[in-house]
Amino acid sequence: MSAANPTAARNADLVVSAEHMLPIAPHNVVLHDAAIAVAGDTIIDMGERSGVLARHPGATHRNLPHHVLLPGLVNAHGHLAMTLLRGLGEGQSLEAWLQETIWPLEGRWVDEDFVADGTLLAMAEMLASGTTTGSDMYYFPETVAELAQVGCRMQVTFPIINHPNAWSQNLDECFERGLKLRDERRSDPLVNVCFGPHSTGTAGEAALRRIAMLADELDAAVHIHLHETKGEVAEARRSLGQSPIETLEEAGLLTENLQAVHMTAVSDLEIAMIAECGASVVHCPMSNTKLASGICPVPSFREAGVNVALGTDGAASNNGLDLFLEARMATLLAKLGSGDPAALPAAEALEMATLGGARALGMADRIGSLEVGKQADFIAVDVDHPAMEPLHDVPAQLVHTAAGTRVSHTYVAGECRYENGSLATIDVDDLRHRAAIWQRRMRHDA
Amino acid sequence: MSAANPTAARNADLVVSAEHMLPIAPHNVVLHDAAIAVAGDTIIDMGERSGVLARHPGATHRNLPHHVLLPGLVNAHGHLAMTLLRGLGEGQSLEAWLQETIWPLEGRWVDEDFVADGTLLAMAEMLASGTTTGSDMYYFPETVAELAQVGCRMQVTFPIINHPNAWSQNLDECFERGLKLRDERRSDPLVNVCFGPHSTGTAGEAALRRIAMLADELDAAVHIHLHETKGEVAEARRSLGQSPIETLEEAGLLTENLQAVHMTAVSDLEIAMIAECGASVVHCPMSNTKLASGICPVPSFREAGVNVALGTDGAASNNGLDLFLEARMATLLAKLGSGDPAALPAAEALEMATLGGARALGMADRIGSLEVGKQADFIAVDVDHPAMEPLHDVPAQLVHTAAGTRVSHTYVAGECRYENGSLATIDVDDLRHRAAIWQRRMRHDA
Repeated sequence: MSAANPTAARNADLVVSAEHMLPIAPHNVVLHDAAIAVAGDTIIDMGERSGVLARHPGATHRNLPHHVLLPGLVNAHGHLAMTLLRGLGEGQSLEAWLQETIWPLEGRWVDEDFVADGTLLAMAEMLASGTTTGSDMYYFPETVAELAQVGCRMQVTFPIINHPNAWSQNLDECFERGLKLRDERRSDPLVNVCFGPHSTGTAGEAALRRIAMLADELDAAVHIHLHETKGEVAEARRSLGQSPIETLEEAGLLTENLQAVHMTAVSDLEIAMIAECGASVVHCPMSNTKLASGICPVPSFREAGVNVALGTDGAASNNGLDLFLEARMATLLAKLGSGDPAALPAAEALEMATLGGARALGMADRIGSLEVGKQADFIAVDVDHPAMEPLHDVPAQLVHTAAGTRVSHTYVAGECRYENGSLATIDVDDLRHRAAIWQRRMRHDA
Repeated sequence: MSAANPTAARNADLVVSAEHMLPIAPHNVVLHDAAIAVAGDTIIDMGERSGVLARHPGATHRNLPHHVLLPGLVNAHGHLAMTLLRGLGEGQSLEAWLQETIWPLEGRWVDEDFVADGTLLAMAEMLASGTTTGSDMYYFPETVAELAQVGCRMQVTFPIINHPNAWSQNLDECFERGLKLRDERRSDPLVNVCFGPHSTGTAGEAALRRIAMLADELDAAVHIHLHETKGEVAEARRSLGQSPIETLEEAGLLTENLQAVHMTAVSDLEIAMIAECGASVVHCPMSNTKLASGICPVPSFREAGVNVALGTDGAASNNGLDLFLEARMATLLAKLGSGDPAALPAAEALEMATLGGARALGMADRIGSLEVGKQADFIAVDVDHPAMEPLHDVPAQLVHTAAGTRVSHTYVAGECRYENGSLATIDVDDLRHRAAIWQRRMRHDA
């Protein structure tokens, strides 16, 4: 934040100033009348508004007078194309919802077009609510990687699943197609490709060992649903004599590359195992609550030193993709679960939604906070609204209201992708039309 | 819904048609291409769009092509002026938050101006998020009743509190001023005045008996914080040898006029006592969770036949006044608390937010559903947004997303008070200015 920043010598294309700024790093700091300077895809300077403007006289200046500027949110777990299934199977438990509603619908309808339309719809919603980076676990990861060029920065995880589906016939094909995509996207700054086994139960032991070997070799992330419900853990103990975490340990997957999603049913020992290996936990509070799966013990994980990120999960179990609402739910569930109203303050929930997500996805050197040298992934929230007055506590106000719906600007890698209701790179009318077609097609099955 | 409706003979001033309509009564019905016809403050006809239009050729027609029309929401518990304290005392328990933050601030700052500005700010937020009727429990109820003329329809409860404050010096003055207000507003269609003792502990036994006698005589409602935390109940048992519900029973206050707010710490016997007397419960899920007070066992109350309404509580413990978010939290907490994902479906949460609130406030003959003969209190939600596509399940989509921020129109008694971001009867710039002044004044105390 010093005026004598060496990178400030480079001339910025764009200076964005705002009434308030939450850089996230350093923690829980609120700056007033602050600005960031952007050159290309990178933040090259930041600080007091007047100083930044003086150092970059040639830059376009965008002043946001009643706004809070903060890093784009990182949605660390989703199944983007499932937006097309939003609101189907309401009121079912995870198992029934998957087996009776979702899997039959997916078996009938999922193809490359379904993934293209559903993913773009999800990206539109995410950009409009302040998410600049997503993680996807679904079929046709090639399509998702392509859409990142007009949508969100993405971690694309390719499915490793041992039953035939529209994308792959068997495990070998999963690895082959997935690794090919990883190779193709090696130098894409907007896409990280990594392993996405659905769960220990559906991948199988041999596949898990193969993933462990390849992930180690390639230093690639492994993203997996883990201990989502008590039922899942009990079933694993019954059939394999061990918990899914123990299965991952045996396969060599308890490493810092692991992204453990859900984690509602864990013992103290299992929390310690996750802490020791340096894996991240991805907490999906809304989906877990809606499916009555349980509460991930976030305060315990954080006390043990575990990095915790936030995810929306798919829109089919949520029913939206607004990460601000997840941050609110995370702090509320932490208070409820621990009985302590001081648990997980708003500023920490915001950190989980940004830097925590960046760390989980192995991208903290590039995104998750407003810092010189990081990617210009940033958003503005318009606080000129009765629901935001008075603004005694900025982080609390962003977390405890529907701030996602008040996002006015979303930039990914220095490019404006959303501004005051309009998406720059996505044709919403066409998207609406296609969503309506999918809705009509599926009406008879649902 | 029949075309041969006798009231349809009267000519409507206004016909509002929409893509979808949720009348709430009958339960869980979604109509498409439907309309309501309004004359003055009353719904005089409804049904299929073309039929309603044909029957009222002289009416102004407002067509809402991508909207859901539903009755205005009823926020059955709030402390409206506390919006000026929004975000203060974050992370404290109920007791600490009241004693260390809120009461000292109130003692220093609450006067008639504070109540006027804070209440109007709250009403602006409520109208903009689809609430047409509120309930207030705060000082200066006269001011709140006056503001209902430009804001929300109101149940105004006057405080009965045995310590001196800016509004009253003692209990006698509370009763005197409150009953005078009730008398003055007797024929005001927008205002109901009733008793608002803060809690059994702060009112005292003698005052409770006096309220019981007067409420019975006047057939007036009694609105009280009840069993908000385990601590409150334990303290009552320790000091009085009985629970607050037992104290109310002894005072003669367990009647159908009772509005029991919070109720997180209740036994099966106490649930049965509430059911037997016909009282309503007002559930404030967000505030209860944020203060780690506990979960009101809504499914148990409903199984026992108790009417349950929803409230936001004050913005100081919420931090917003968006009743759609409360409906979402209500269904999520019901699922979490019971372990049953089928608990309290979205349509039931919407009913609690409308007709349940109307019943609790004794206004179900006038508001809470779109029915011929009821007041024209209605709202529209704009669903032309990526987060609302596809719209497989309308009630689920309204409840499980931030639908309050997508409200496009709010009518109270046939009068448009909010339309597409603009409040018709409230000067938001002036309000913003005054909120900023209060924020500056309080900065040094907070």
